[in-house]
Amino acid sequence: MVEIRTVEAREHVGERVALRGWVHNVRRLGGVNFIVLRDGWGMIQAVTENDADLAPIAGLTLGTVVQLGGFVVANAQAPDGLELQQPSLEIITPVTETPPLSLNKKRLNAALPTLLDHAVVANRHPTRRAVFRLSAGAMAGFRATLSAMHFTEIQTPKIVASATESGANVFKLDYFGRPAFLAQSPQFYKQIMVGVFERVFEVGPVFRAEPHDTVRHINEYVSMDVEFGFIENHFTVMRLLREVIAGIFAHLAQNYAADLVLLEANLPTILPEIPHIHFADAQELIFTRHGIDVRGEPDLSPQDERLLGEWAWESFGSDFLFVSGYPMVKRPFYTHPDPNRPGYSNSFDLLFRGTELVTGGQRLHRYGDYLAALDQAGYPHEPFEQYLEAFRYGMPPHGGFAIGLERLLMQLLGLPNLRLATLFPRDLNRVAP
Amino acid sequence: MVEIRTVEAREHVGERVALRGWVHNVRRLGGVNFIVLRDGWGMIQAVTENDADLAPIAGLTLGTVVQLGGFVVANAQAPDGLELQQPSLEIITPVTETPPLSLNKKRLNAALPTLLDHAVVANRHPTRRAVFRLSAGAMAGFRATLSAMHFTEIQTPKIVASATESGANVFKLDYFGRPAFLAQSPQFYKQIMVGVFERVFEVGPVFRAEPHDTVRHINEYVSMDVEFGFIENHFTVMRLLREVIAGIFAHLAQNYAADLVLLEANLPTILPEIPHIHFADAQELIFTRHGIDVRGEPDLSPQDERLLGEWAWESFGSDFLFVSGYPMVKRPFYTHPDPNRPGYSNSFDLLFRGTELVTGGQRLHRYGDYLAALDQAGYPHEPFEQYLEAFRYGMPPHGGFAIGLERLLMQLLGLPNLRLATLFPRDLNRVAP
Repeated sequence: MVEIRTVEAREHVGERVALRGWVHNVRRLGGVNFIVLRDGWGMIQAVTENDADLAPIAGLTLGTVVQLGGFVVANAQAPDGLELQQPSLEIITPVTETPPLSLNKKRLNAALPTLLDHAVVANRHPTRRAVFRLSAGAMAGFRATLSAMHFTEIQTPKIVASATESGANVFKLDYFGRPAFLAQSPQFYKQIMVGVFERVFEVGPVFRAEPHDTVRHINEYVSMDVEFGFIENHFTVMRLLREVIAGIFAHLAQNYAADLVLLEANLPTILPEIPHIHFADAQELIFTRHGIDVRGEPDLSPQDERLLGEWAWESFGSDFLFVSGYPMVKRPFYTHPDPNRPGYSNSFDLLFRGTELVTGGQRLHRYGDYLAALDQAGYPHEPFEQYLEAFRYGMPPHGGFAIGLERLLMQLLGLPNLRLATLFPRDLNRVAP
Repeated sequence: MVEIRTVEAREHVGERVALRGWVHNVRRLGGVNFIVLRDGWGMIQAVTENDADLAPIAGLTLGTVVQLGGFVVANAQAPDGLELQQPSLEIITPVTETPPLSLNKKRLNAALPTLLDHAVVANRHPTRRAVFRLSAGAMAGFRATLSAMHFTEIQTPKIVASATESGANVFKLDYFGRPAFLAQSPQFYKQIMVGVFERVFEVGPVFRAEPHDTVRHINEYVSMDVEFGFIENHFTVMRLLREVIAGIFAHLAQNYAADLVLLEANLPTILPEIPHIHFADAQELIFTRHGIDVRGEPDLSPQDERLLGEWAWESFGSDFLFVSGYPMVKRPFYTHPDPNRPGYSNSFDLLFRGTELVTGGQRLHRYGDYLAALDQAGYPHEPFEQYLEAFRYGMPPHGGFAIGLERLLMQLLGLPNLRLATLFPRDLNRVAP
């Protein structure tokens, strides 16, 4: 008897097979017993009119871990057109308590706090699993796309001696009696590594001590970072980003079709050239179209982003929109200014369906420019000295971006809360499970 | 004029090309000028008898960022059999200061503290780059091998509410006014995720506040974690680990030949079945062979591991040795005991050339066993309640392991210090750069 995974059943029609997993559902309908097994990849249904076949799970609850044997039979009535007949059931781990959430309904009907408190169990639900399989797929697509473009993967330290950008929003740490911080981003390190490998990427956790309690903030998330050298300006970076985004979604479309269908995901339209609007023009557009005057504001609000996303869809049929040239005042000190437009920068955000998904831009690359930028920001040089060695001893014009993994899933799947795109979210009030 | 990377020059013999990178070396030999360019992937040499060709870099130091044009010519005397002739040089970023380390020698001749203080520059040296390219390759090989075996990649939180295994060696954090900790390992989360995906892996940072100042400890490192369900016992885990190790080294051999040659790496012998010795027998063996009586000790010392590694090589020609059955007293509370040998566990270490590279084993999987194990260890149940939901609502027999990425490189390359396998190491005295 061959041991298979649920998703391999189609290749074994007519054979007796054994599967292992969790009892997902048990039903009795018109004298027929149905037992649904869930393994790590999918589900399969077994049918029997013989009540004795189900005897081993008498008194046990859903979630019991079992081995299920049976003949694989094609049956158009069964889910996925397959079922197991003449089942045999062996208990591996009995469960006697009723789980805190029902996993056997099509949708996971639970209030958000319940779902998050019991994420350990909730993540077993088919719809939750699909989210996190897509998450794995997005990382794989990101890496594959960049590796094909000769980028090298790096792993940079998360415990750092000084805050990257602003001291306010970092977690402080006791490092053998000295203060240290959790990295808000691999920004400095990925720039340094452009001096080593020219083209680098990293997938890893970043930590933001922002005391925001919104549906689109969490305090630890996965950042997919890119940085590369020998660019002309931020438009070079935007062109590369377009290819990376296209690569990620192509990878998902190709390898995760079932998950996308289950979650009713709508794959985005990615035009050969993603539409682009300058920050100042975006504010003008909002005023012209909606009578809302945000001109002169140093940043876009979530509402601004939403309105711009609508405009991009209506005008270009694009789910994505680049907004470039954000004012220098709201960008970190290493941002390259726009040489032709004082006060504006060579930076951009990429909006995905009206929400910021990516921030990026061109960075300063000359040592002297860094010293001046630190002075301008009122920062001392000393904490940055080692970082600045990269520029002191030769750096090309370079830039990069960071894609928020959870944001990408939230927008792709239309999730109402970023927490739902995270296995075990960390927020203002939640540090467990 | 086509823009190429150094490593693509061979495909462009006879063409005029442009490359961009750093001036790695400049020499004058018998009336001929040599200029070596380093880009993110390799190096190439240009030659000219015309001193004027080098005029643009007059007064600048090595490390200056340039564009270098020239005709690609096959020349058996040149490094890699290729050189650029009739070079043209344009400055992209001038450098005028002499770097703190000489990058243009075959070996990086610097004391360890100098090398670590100036890691930002030192990592540009060809031998350092090769180490970190192999590091990227090891991660890629790990992921590829596991993905082919239907494992799902996960990203679990690094900020956690309670210490995983022992409270002593964790970094404490101020989490919005409450205490929290940095994850010593994704242990609990990867076990939880066996309940979701059956087979999972993670590559990510782990944090150990161990106050050890040795050549083989650092306080933040990259752990390549695996956990999977439906095992028979720890031998199932050991068999999978063998495949993962073989997959990693096969990936390196196939894709990183030049780096392995440059670092004079000796690829290990991985037998179809890695030799295996029980912990108690290992202690007996050390006594018999060396007269050193460590019998009754609860753990192996670095010396013990070295002696066992020698034995594995001499007896089996194997660079790897499994030691299994470590005493329960030295293993964490979730370790599955050996049902046949009281006091010993279903756990193992994998030694690679006489140093522990991997720790793993079978875990407890029954809810009741966890409650008993916590009581036995004297731990309260409450901090573990959410973690224990995984077991309360059904978990199969499972196990896994964690491979230290830096250890793997250290042992493969014969590096004298683990810090040399880390881009920017964190130790007792070092939290920057």
